[in-house]
Amino acid sequence: MYHRLILGNIYRRVGSLLHPLPKPHPSFKPLSLSSKPLIFISHLRTSATNLQPPSSMDSTEISLRQSLAEKQAAVDAQATAVRELKGSSAADKASVNAAVEALKGLKLEKSSIEEQLQAILKSNGGESREAFRQGVINTLERKLFYVPSFKIYGGVAGLYDYGPPGCAVKQNVLAYWRQHFVMQENMLEVDCPCVTPEVVLKASGHVDKFTDLMVKDEKTGTCYRADHLIKDFCKEVLEKDLSLPAKKREEFEHVLAVLDGLSPEELGAKIKEYGITAPETKNELSDPYPFNLMFQTSIGPSGVSPGFMRPETAQGIFVNFKDLYYYNGNKLPFAAAQIGQAFRNEISPRQGLLRVREFTLAEIEHFVDPQDKSHKKFPDVASLEFLMFPRELQESGQSAKKMALGEAVSKGTVNNETLGYFIGRVYIFLTSLGIDKEKLRFRQHLSKEMAHYAADCWDAEIECSYGWIECVGIADRSAYDLHAHTDKSGVALVAHEKYAEPIEVEKVTITPVKRELGLAFKGNQKMVVEALEAMDEKDAMDMKANLESKGEVEFKVCTLEKNVTITNKMVTIKKEKKKEHQRVFTPSVIEPSFGIGRIIYCLYEHSFYTRASKAGDEQLNVFRFPPLVAPIKCTVFPLVQNQDYEKVAGQIVKSLAAAGISHKIDTTGTSIGKRYARTDELGVPFAITVDSIDSVTVRERDSKQQIRVPVDEVSSVIKEVTDGQSTWGDVQWRYPTHSSVSADE
Amino acid sequence: MYHRLILGNIYRRVGSLLHPLPKPHPSFKPLSLSSKPLIFISHLRTSATNLQPPSSMDSTEISLRQSLAEKQAAVDAQATAVRELKGSSAADKASVNAAVEALKGLKLEKSSIEEQLQAILKSNGGESREAFRQGVINTLERKLFYVPSFKIYGGVAGLYDYGPPGCAVKQNVLAYWRQHFVMQENMLEVDCPCVTPEVVLKASGHVDKFTDLMVKDEKTGTCYRADHLIKDFCKEVLEKDLSLPAKKREEFEHVLAVLDGLSPEELGAKIKEYGITAPETKNELSDPYPFNLMFQTSIGPSGVSPGFMRPETAQGIFVNFKDLYYYNGNKLPFAAAQIGQAFRNEISPRQGLLRVREFTLAEIEHFVDPQDKSHKKFPDVASLEFLMFPRELQESGQSAKKMALGEAVSKGTVNNETLGYFIGRVYIFLTSLGIDKEKLRFRQHLSKEMAHYAADCWDAEIECSYGWIECVGIADRSAYDLHAHTDKSGVALVAHEKYAEPIEVEKVTITPVKRELGLAFKGNQKMVVEALEAMDEKDAMDMKANLESKGEVEFKVCTLEKNVTITNKMVTIKKEKKKEHQRVFTPSVIEPSFGIGRIIYCLYEHSFYTRASKAGDEQLNVFRFPPLVAPIKCTVFPLVQNQDYEKVAGQIVKSLAAAGISHKIDTTGTSIGKRYARTDELGVPFAITVDSIDSVTVRERDSKQQIRVPVDEVSSVIKEVTDGQSTWGDVQWRYPTHSSVSADE
Repeated sequence: MYHRLILGNIYRRVGSLLHPLPKPHPSFKPLSLSSKPLIFISHLRTSATNLQPPSSMDSTEISLRQSLAEKQAAVDAQATAVRELKGSSAADKASVNAAVEALKGLKLEKSSIEEQLQAILKSNGGESREAFRQGVINTLERKLFYVPSFKIYGGVAGLYDYGPPGCAVKQNVLAYWRQHFVMQENMLEVDCPCVTPEVVLKASGHVDKFTDLMVKDEKTGTCYRADHLIKDFCKEVLEKDLSLPAKKREEFEHVLAVLDGLSPEELGAKIKEYGITAPETKNELSDPYPFNLMFQTSIGPSGVSPGFMRPETAQGIFVNFKDLYYYNGNKLPFAAAQIGQAFRNEISPRQGLLRVREFTLAEIEHFVDPQDKSHKKFPDVASLEFLMFPRELQESGQSAKKMALGEAVSKGTVNNETLGYFIGRVYIFLTSLGIDKEKLRFRQHLSKEMAHYAADCWDAEIECSYGWIECVGIADRSAYDLHAHTDKSGVALVAHEKYAEPIEVEKVTITPVKRELGLAFKGNQKMVVEALEAMDEKDAMDMKANLESKGEVEFKVCTLEKNVTITNKMVTIKKEKKKEHQRVFTPSVIEPSFGIGRIIYCLYEHSFYTRASKAGDEQLNVFRFPPLVAPIKCTVFPLVQNQDYEKVAGQIVKSLAAAGISHKIDTTGTSIGKRYARTDELGVPFAITVDSIDSVTVRERDSKQQIRVPVDEVSSVIKEVTDGQSTWGDVQWRYPTHSSVSADE
Repeated sequence: MYHRLILGNIYRRVGSLLHPLPKPHPSFKPLSLSSKPLIFISHLRTSATNLQPPSSMDSTEISLRQSLAEKQAAVDAQATAVRELKGSSAADKASVNAAVEALKGLKLEKSSIEEQLQAILKSNGGESREAFRQGVINTLERKLFYVPSFKIYGGVAGLYDYGPPGCAVKQNVLAYWRQHFVMQENMLEVDCPCVTPEVVLKASGHVDKFTDLMVKDEKTGTCYRADHLIKDFCKEVLEKDLSLPAKKREEFEHVLAVLDGLSPEELGAKIKEYGITAPETKNELSDPYPFNLMFQTSIGPSGVSPGFMRPETAQGIFVNFKDLYYYNGNKLPFAAAQIGQAFRNEISPRQGLLRVREFTLAEIEHFVDPQDKSHKKFPDVASLEFLMFPRELQESGQSAKKMALGEAVSKGTVNNETLGYFIGRVYIFLTSLGIDKEKLRFRQHLSKEMAHYAADCWDAEIECSYGWIECVGIADRSAYDLHAHTDKSGVALVAHEKYAEPIEVEKVTITPVKRELGLAFKGNQKMVVEALEAMDEKDAMDMKANLESKGEVEFKVCTLEKNVTITNKMVTIKKEKKKEHQRVFTPSVIEPSFGIGRIIYCLYEHSFYTRASKAGDEQLNVFRFPPLVAPIKCTVFPLVQNQDYEKVAGQIVKSLAAAGISHKIDTTGTSIGKRYARTDELGVPFAITVDSIDSVTVRERDSKQQIRVPVDEVSSVIKEVTDGQSTWGDVQWRYPTHSSVSADE
């Protein structure tokens, strides 16, 4: 049991550089979850910490660190020399003084290098990133984009509420997701419950393997993630100890790079080696042990039916495959989709909205014939060019490169057209929301990161103040999931293809004789039977030949971790010719899986900027959300508190509501400039100032340009520019510019 | 503890007719949930079974039952007479024979009445309702509107998946809800997690009182809801035993009516009295005991932080009141809204989609000054007329009546304008979705059904094959919820109103001297302090006078269930004059709460009909969904498999997708009639048949009327009629009618 848990853990994590995965024997079916959203949610991976640590350090920093190490060595050598001189009776005072002066000089030089390095660290990331993030987060919390849940009761780590603007942004992102994926691709959307019985998650592997490794404070019982403690320790040493010898630095960097692949024993050994204790109490820590991340509950009143809150939405689709295939007229390919809440009981959530205990996933399962993964709409995306980071570049220490998607597929960098098609569609989706193209890359999983069954895996990673964050996983999971549920439920989740005419096939059938096996192996019978049945054709024919010639044969049963003797009474192996009318096969599944909260958080960072107020005495916050995403599309401001203006404002509000345009009216007497600033912070793209009863001023948020539009046309103009039928440029061309700046500031 | 549980149970249930609620002492704050969505989800109330049993029996049935009872009495009397005659030596054979013949005659007459009664029961409800429901459900399941969740593993009672058309209907209902409520009323929508820490649900009362009474099969441990078993028993007797004496009949009907208010002891007594045993095994049953309906879990790895899956979404809004009030510019009234999953671990779910363990709620909390519950938009709904069922009509055994909403509010039938406004808006919402006006009524809670703090409560009830189902609860909950969280969290959830100028007020302050009270009452100190602080002004001034004159006073502490002696050292009571600049008060909340799944199920029943196929050999199923609700707005059928037609179809599909119109293309060679029938079952309102390359035929589902529209106009025509900008009548007037019927059938 423990062995399997650990195995699961290794599989689930980023492929360990220390422990390449053993290739499992075919009779052992590892319930690997490696390429699943599991990873991407569980592991907030930043390339700085696990895959390409050096690439995030710029060349100046590297050379400064080298100089510093050299200078430190020189200081050490000179100090030794001084000590020796002082201890030697032969040395004269002058030469001692000269050596001491030389040491002082070296130390000064070292300090100067240290200062330069500090300055670079500060500007490169570190503090300036931190300050930027604080600016964004302060605005988000003050404007109720999100707040910690249950705040009046002190909150709960890892749970957040979306307040009105955040909730609207989320709804807009989801509506666009439905339009862009479900509608455009005619996907079958389903809606399954969060409460899930144990058997389903046993089949998927979550019950046994959906774990993180945990250590406990031996005295207080407080729990920590083992890898987090080691990561924090290494990062702190690397950041603070500037004169760390190059060799030590390399060691810590190596640990960070391979951390995700360490076994519980290895993590425990590192904790002991580094003397890591509980962060608050400094108490000793327990050995690391696996903790299942699912929220457990009980279904029904009897207490005998365990259930879990689903850790992903995908399983709801897999278990419905048969019905969905029928609904689709028994035709492949087709895709099913689901948007919904998923849950994971994180050991110690951190990094705000990026690692939470409850989150919204949007998942697509595209079912396809494994023999034909072409996609008829691939040409629509083939000419897209964007940052891609194939495993070759990662392994050779290079950085992501702009590539044409069509080429990446034709060269085989991306495994197949369908996978490529989704990569392209995800690119369009994210950039349409306002994700910065230069801070978006598609990173291929290293072969060691992937489950053995996965054909290929790419993550859409977005760069934000926390580093490169995995926001969408796009995986070709082959037939793994449907196989797992077929095995567990006994319901064949398969597709059919009729042959034009029946074909003759030769098939090997393996029939274990259970009675004989039971007599021989007692409690181990089941494992032996499974291993026999799982033999491939070649192994089976070899065994047949051996049994016929020798009467018995040695056979390795992986799950028993030993060889057993099989006699010819125990199994019948035949090769037969059969006529087949149709091909029955388990479809492959290509799974794009979106962490909606992460995408939204990155969007906030990419949309945020500050600009000086007119008086220049203040920095004003702005979110440059595209209209598609903006929580409120339009504000209405009567210029002054005046009955006529308020009546006009009322009419406009009514027609905006009827057109389904989210809006906000502000009738306070505050200056227009202040009212603009308030709504710029909410990312409202357009403002209507009612400054006459016939026509009004419409102002665009980022350019601050203004046009005059007749009252009875204004709501349709706003609809045009927020629906994306027209651009601001289009309407600017149609209406006179409003040149008075008095209204704006 | 147990006492409170029972109390809670009574509160939560429909007010017991046996046990009117005791008026609680002010120092005891009952955490009543009586008027909450809790009830409406927990209790699938049909007026037939709990409030007006006779009203659902039509007059013929009543008179037949009377005749039957009379005839039975006559039969019994005659049988006695026959027995006496036979036993008497005085009787001659002729008179005995005559008496026997008379008895036979009476028995025949009785049989005839029984037959009539059976026929009426069959047509009135019973079997025909059952058959109709089966027709709807079969279509829904076959077309994947919904399916039992985890079907391949045998399913889980009370959990359902929405398949593609069901999921689309749900999305459409929610989108319209957002447009109709959130957008039109500028509500503040929030999105809070399902995982909720214990403290929040302790404050709301759910931890202690969100229970149903359960009995266990003494041998197998299988659990049942106590009230369900008694209900089933009574209904079966009433239905099957047609000759039940009137007195017995009345008794069973009375039990059904008061069932929801019975205590555990009374339920247990009834089970014993009727000899009810476990339905499957006939084993003895345990005494009834409360079972908490929340799914429990544990937050974080330590196992010491219990949490629950929220049973409603409302609490997420209440705990955020302070931030939301601030976001709204510290102004009242305003409404917050939330759509999300809620969970309840039903003891034994039944009635399909109507009683489930996980469901989507849409809740509004409208916060208002308790001194001013007017609503400025009330005139917009005042002239609406619909079925209302105020408590007076219920209590006098009458049925619901059409009333004008404006009058209902002005007469005080509906407590206030805001409540009335929401009733009107809910009426528009439900009927726009396609709910039949004649099968929709607003039923007022009886005073005994409501919590003591509730000002008024109305349920939107929809009639379906299960009876009248509560689908929306609209309650004026006064300040209860904000008070509860203020008390528990210590954070004041209040609103402020500045006075034009400061006013002078006289206030009583009660200051318990905790040291003295601690010495005197030890562990009970807290209860005594709370009871002292909770005294109203009059009680406090009485105590002050008594303490001053006698030095001590007897004081009843409800939570201790006894009197204690309070001396003048233990409390200081003062009446002081103060200047106040603002009024600080706890807002009232008016809560419309929508059970989305129930509304959708009723909508399915109201939309379903069958019509004969052209050949007359088949009944075809149709859902008459309005375009607003229809899961797919439009199908595209190339008349024959032909490249030109398919190209045109492809163009149309592309422009439908771009316009965001959900559609489906069917390129099978099947006859157009069959393709129509297939999509009528999905409720698709419009079908485009591509039968030329210039113009196409558009067919409307219910009228089967057809028009010819040019290819390049067709997607905008479909957009017009599905968006509600035009009606089918409008476009029919603009385009030529297509008279050929060959395409249709």
